[in-house]
Amino acid sequence: MSSKKARIRLGMVGGGNGAFIGEVHRMAARLDDRYELVAGTFSSDPQRGKESAAQLGIDSSRSYDDFATMATKESAREDGIQAVAIVTPNHLHFAPAKAFLEAGIHVICDKPLTSSLDDAIALQASAKESKLLFAVTYNYSGYPMVRQAREMIASGELGEIRVVQVEYPQDWLSTDIESSGQKQAAWRTDPALAGAGGSLGDIGTHAFHLTEFITGLKVKSILADLNAFVLGRKLDDNAQLLLRFGNGARGSLWASQVAVGHENGLRIRVYGEKASLHWFQEQPNQLQFSVLAESPRILSRGGATAGTSANSVTRIPGGHPEGFLEAFANIYTGFADAIEGTESENAALVPDVDAGLRGVRFIEAAVTSANNGGVWRSID
Amino acid sequence: MSSKKARIRLGMVGGGNGAFIGEVHRMAARLDDRYELVAGTFSSDPQRGKESAAQLGIDSSRSYDDFATMATKESAREDGIQAVAIVTPNHLHFAPAKAFLEAGIHVICDKPLTSSLDDAIALQASAKESKLLFAVTYNYSGYPMVRQAREMIASGELGEIRVVQVEYPQDWLSTDIESSGQKQAAWRTDPALAGAGGSLGDIGTHAFHLTEFITGLKVKSILADLNAFVLGRKLDDNAQLLLRFGNGARGSLWASQVAVGHENGLRIRVYGEKASLHWFQEQPNQLQFSVLAESPRILSRGGATAGTSANSVTRIPGGHPEGFLEAFANIYTGFADAIEGTESENAALVPDVDAGLRGVRFIEAAVTSANNGGVWRSID
Amino acid sequence: MSSKKARIRLGMVGGGNGAFIGEVHRMAARLDDRYELVAGTFSSDPQRGKESAAQLGIDSSRSYDDFATMATKESAREDGIQAVAIVTPNHLHFAPAKAFLEAGIHVICDKPLTSSLDDAIALQASAKESKLLFAVTYNYSGYPMVRQAREMIASGELGEIRVVQVEYPQDWLSTDIESSGQKQAAWRTDPALAGAGGSLGDIGTHAFHLTEFITGLKVKSILADLNAFVLGRKLDDNAQLLLRFGNGARGSLWASQVAVGHENGLRIRVYGEKASLHWFQEQPNQLQFSVLAESPRILSRGGATAGTSANSVTRIPGGHPEGFLEAFANIYTGFADAIEGTESENAALVPDVDAGLRGVRFIEAAVTSANNGGVWRSID
Amino acid sequence: MSSKKARIRLGMVGGGNGAFIGEVHRMAARLDDRYELVAGTFSSDPQRGKESAAQLGIDSSRSYDDFATMATKESAREDGIQAVAIVTPNHLHFAPAKAFLEAGIHVICDKPLTSSLDDAIALQASAKESKLLFAVTYNYSGYPMVRQAREMIASGELGEIRVVQVEYPQDWLSTDIESSGQKQAAWRTDPALAGAGGSLGDIGTHAFHLTEFITGLKVKSILADLNAFVLGRKLDDNAQLLLRFGNGARGSLWASQVAVGHENGLRIRVYGEKASLHWFQEQPNQLQFSVLAESPRILSRGGATAGTSANSVTRIPGGHPEGFLEAFANIYTGFADAIEGTESENAALVPDVDAGLRGVRFIEAAVTSANNGGVWRSID
Repeated sequence: MSSKKARIRLGMVGGGNGAFIGEVHRMAARLDDRYELVAGTFSSDPQRGKESAAQLGIDSSRSYDDFATMATKESAREDGIQAVAIVTPNHLHFAPAKAFLEAGIHVICDKPLTSSLDDAIALQASAKESKLLFAVTYNYSGYPMVRQAREMIASGELGEIRVVQVEYPQDWLSTDIESSGQKQAAWRTDPALAGAGGSLGDIGTHAFHLTEFITGLKVKSILADLNAFVLGRKLDDNAQLLLRFGNGARGSLWASQVAVGHENGLRIRVYGEKASLHWFQEQPNQLQFSVLAESPRILSRGGATAGTSANSVTRIPGGHPEGFLEAFANIYTGFADAIEGTESENAALVPDVDAGLRGVRFIEAAVTSANNGGVWRSID
Repeated sequence: MSSKKARIRLGMVGGGNGAFIGEVHRMAARLDDRYELVAGTFSSDPQRGKESAAQLGIDSSRSYDDFATMATKESAREDGIQAVAIVTPNHLHFAPAKAFLEAGIHVICDKPLTSSLDDAIALQASAKESKLLFAVTYNYSGYPMVRQAREMIASGELGEIRVVQVEYPQDWLSTDIESSGQKQAAWRTDPALAGAGGSLGDIGTHAFHLTEFITGLKVKSILADLNAFVLGRKLDDNAQLLLRFGNGARGSLWASQVAVGHENGLRIRVYGEKASLHWFQEQPNQLQFSVLAESPRILSRGGATAGTSANSVTRIPGGHPEGFLEAFANIYTGFADAIEGTESENAALVPDVDAGLRGVRFIEAAVTSANNGGVWRSID
Repeated sequence: MSSKKARIRLGMVGGGNGAFIGEVHRMAARLDDRYELVAGTFSSDPQRGKESAAQLGIDSSRSYDDFATMATKESAREDGIQAVAIVTPNHLHFAPAKAFLEAGIHVICDKPLTSSLDDAIALQASAKESKLLFAVTYNYSGYPMVRQAREMIASGELGEIRVVQVEYPQDWLSTDIESSGQKQAAWRTDPALAGAGGSLGDIGTHAFHLTEFITGLKVKSILADLNAFVLGRKLDDNAQLLLRFGNGARGSLWASQVAVGHENGLRIRVYGEKASLHWFQEQPNQLQFSVLAESPRILSRGGATAGTSANSVTRIPGGHPEGFLEAFANIYTGFADAIEGTESENAALVPDVDAGLRGVRFIEAAVTSANNGGVWRSID
Repeated sequence: MSSKKARIRLGMVGGGNGAFIGEVHRMAARLDDRYELVAGTFSSDPQRGKESAAQLGIDSSRSYDDFATMATKESAREDGIQAVAIVTPNHLHFAPAKAFLEAGIHVICDKPLTSSLDDAIALQASAKESKLLFAVTYNYSGYPMVRQAREMIASGELGEIRVVQVEYPQDWLSTDIESSGQKQAAWRTDPALAGAGGSLGDIGTHAFHLTEFITGLKVKSILADLNAFVLGRKLDDNAQLLLRFGNGARGSLWASQVAVGHENGLRIRVYGEKASLHWFQEQPNQLQFSVLAESPRILSRGGATAGTSANSVTRIPGGHPEGFLEAFANIYTGFADAIEGTESENAALVPDVDAGLRGVRFIEAAVTSANNGGVWRSID
């Protein structure tokens, strides 16, 4: 009889109050109950860091003011963290990543790896030397249908790849919001914090990783036309690239943060000699598969034709989009509010026993109607 | 400085190994870190119950062989459960729900509430009398864009409602799989376990609840034509209903589990005097909104036009479909496998430091290409 | 060596200036060059009839003031019409159809056949007795992918049919436009002109015909809930029906002219034991085909998998939506304006020789760029 | 009282039996009844040319063996052609176009204008000198929603244009079909007949024209990467281009005839400072319009928000896709077969008087059912 293993002790650098990606990392860590967040340097502002720690239920003795202290102290504890998640802006990836590796702690680091190439090369060397594990959260590679695409291409279902069209348009930087103090925009458009790439680093790297991840090919050379359309912006907000792959395939990559009308439109299309695949991040549960001279097919996550690599990361059946879990969680969280006496709209909307009774009345009325040959019947 | 509240202590009845919906409830409870699962009667088979408890990390002293003992013992503990989730087949909702209410424990119960109308009426009475909280997991009402639809209708954006078309087609019961031992199918097609409704109870009740939830209207009377298309099946696998609402609106409701090609196609369309709304569960982040004599608009979760009730249950920005979190979690879970030394395809696919370096090389090459006027440039 | 046959001499009753459907009939007759319109009673107002005839290029001697005279005179001519198209409101179908049959002339009649059941029965008898040909323009049955669907069902690809869901929502009668003199609305909402059915007769009959046409099944019995949502309207503007088919299949039919957001949303879904089909009139070139336990496929008109009955009515290749021809015709018509010296925006937008030259410059520049290894190149 | 003008007398060069595009030109010319085809040199093979003429109903005296004779003779006739349509392969555009211009006849010429740049420059000069009209059939510019897009951009609804993404993928040249005698493929892949561009000339020029037509901008410079993926093919079957526009906008253009899964996927997306537009040729009746910080809207041809330039080339109402006319024509043509005694599946499927009667029975049964409160009612 197998028992549950203890959860992995996790620390975090960055991700304090109001940080979008830190909370995403925490929810991701919690979903499969494999991690326990026990320590952190949640902010460069010590007071804000402490507050965040308290709100996250972290023992105050393990809320640190700086990552260096955290690395030292945690590595000295018997029950110290086994892994750390680094969720700071790009220019603050390198130093903590290096510090935790040196402290013998596995690293999960947001992308892009660093803000300069020299740092990236150095960090790779540190990681190799340390024999520790190092993950970069190119999170789009985690989608089941991305895994499915990769598996199909690897197994030869497309034949030799000829063309790859990948794009990642957004529109949130269409105007000069960095000047009005929007924090997410401010660091992403500042070369000192983001590095040499604007949209290129923030989203282009996702598109690039996805391209190599899905196709299994290496991009050999690229040609880029980078522009900053918003007046005064120092980093690119639109990047047009042509790609040449090692096997002779060609392609294009477009990343833009001024493409009005797109929220997070990562899309990849791969064309081989025999077939093609098309995946769109905003409808992630589908994958279009077109074989030459056959009708295009819509593969679905959890569907009849999903392969093992997709199924191994699938939690719920086909047709239940992955947001199903969040919707379900909303009911639970609303009920938690109710139990704790927290007034919230979410609590107020939790279906109650009256709704339950009404559903049974519905069944009863329908069955009675049908049993009488199909006649009108009151619900109440 | 606010600190995190203690998590709510949760028990579960049903949901042992291999049960789909039990694991969904657990992930939902975990996502926002508001609950801690500490006790359970996970199976009617005590041995299987114990194994499930061990795998879930539940202390063996709080793994019970029957729900009655669990209710008694837990209510006697200082640290006993505050709420219980009942995730058994329909006919096993009533007795445990009643028992836990009588033990002073809040109840989360799967739908439909019970397998008979008498039980439902009795349970409603118990719940009211107990003054305890009672939630029925009509989970589709938890989607942000369902909340958005409800809010828009309540605020009068559609005018008086005239027509509601709701449907919930699936195809997994298109053949006689209950005879081949498929457990999920077996109880759902057995009147003794499921009650009077087949597809009607399993999915029709979801459609019915959603209709009243979104519109704020009450269905006054219905007319039903129920069929079992699969030979020998005792409960309906296809239900066609007409609806008449209290305000004079009309509609139809179709629930089917033999509708080949549909995975989980819950769809609702509401037409008012001034505008209409259209929501489809398999693309839950969008909501189509059409005002008379205007072009239809696609509202999106987290988008510019989302209202407060949707935003209050939204965890991630527009364009990041809710499955984004699961994809992210796949990276975390693969990395957990790697840390623990568990060999898995998921672990093998976690982007590593080399992928990180490669991303930075990509930025470097692109910037150099562009700075030279748009010329070809090697990645390596 | 085969020569072109002479075109069929066609007459028309109704369809004068400003009538939508008359012009549709004429364009349809012209498209394949099989008919020549040579006579007509284009309006009940003789002056308006004459003007319409002149604008249509009909010889004034064959522009008639009433259909009875037209039937008599045309049947007496050596070169009289061989067929007549009746495109008047419903209550004016019966008398002319009967008159032309009695005059020995084939009839093309708009739907519904007549405004009363007695008339329809009498007209059927006349038609049978006459041995003449009689067509009712249930035009949706003319779409290639509708023919494809019919052929696939007839050949057994779906197995026994179980469920049919058909709907035809529009929104143009959402308000009381008949009171403001809108002519199309006025006769369709007047029982004296339209007959007993409002949306039922105008569009419900299309949905009904399509259902029997595609499935090859007969509807055995129906149950209807009809409503007029717009205050004071005498005929239904919303019709909810349940269907029972001869073979035991079930279904529903919804026709509505108050369904805000729908322009002409005829949609049919047919579910069999083995597979299903889904066709939507507003995207008529596609047909979704889902086989149990396989991924859904998108069949396309002119595509690799189209069958003979679809191909026999297909004029242009797959991917060229049928509107391709209209777009092409717009260029021709704009050019005709230009030749005739008629000033029009359409004439102004016809691509000219400069556009032609520019296209060749584009090719030249692209080839030169590529031949030099991929370098920037000016177009001019 | 205005009368119909005489139709324009049209000749054709090319377009004999089996030519796809010739028949398209003829249907386009016929649709609005503005042209009459009276002469032609339908094939370079005189016998085949004569047969085609006979089948088209052209008087044998006006079926010519070569275009030069045709130009001379027709220009000498009192009733000679006023315009000629040139629908031959690319290398046979220049000579006849020049000849007809010199004979004083307006020219409609297929694209690309010529197979060499020198020819194109010379032809432009001839056309200018002649003072005659010259149209190049960039037919995609004829779609109403393309006109709509152009009008919206011209009126400033998008603000300054920043990015244009245009693509035209097809898959019909994915294999070496030119070697197996496919005639359409053979000339398009032969530099002697097609010119310097393969996919570039055949479809890239359409994408290029559409880009400048819709945006009103001029492309200033381009960078191209051209490939022939099919072994032995002499012209590009895949073209990746970057675009720089006169106003500083950037873009990419992708034309491919080896993009498996695409039939005729011309798609253009234009992003401005304030809004964006997205049009896809395979669903030509829709146009997506997204304003910054608003929900995307789906504009439709003939819909409430269509502008004057679109409406002036719109024949049928919104929701009636333009293929509606072809479907309608199929009924007419099937009926023509029936009248002429030609046996065809199309003739057999024309809805007849029985179908008409059945529709009226349907109305009668539905009304009776509803009038009795919603009860089952037989159709027959």
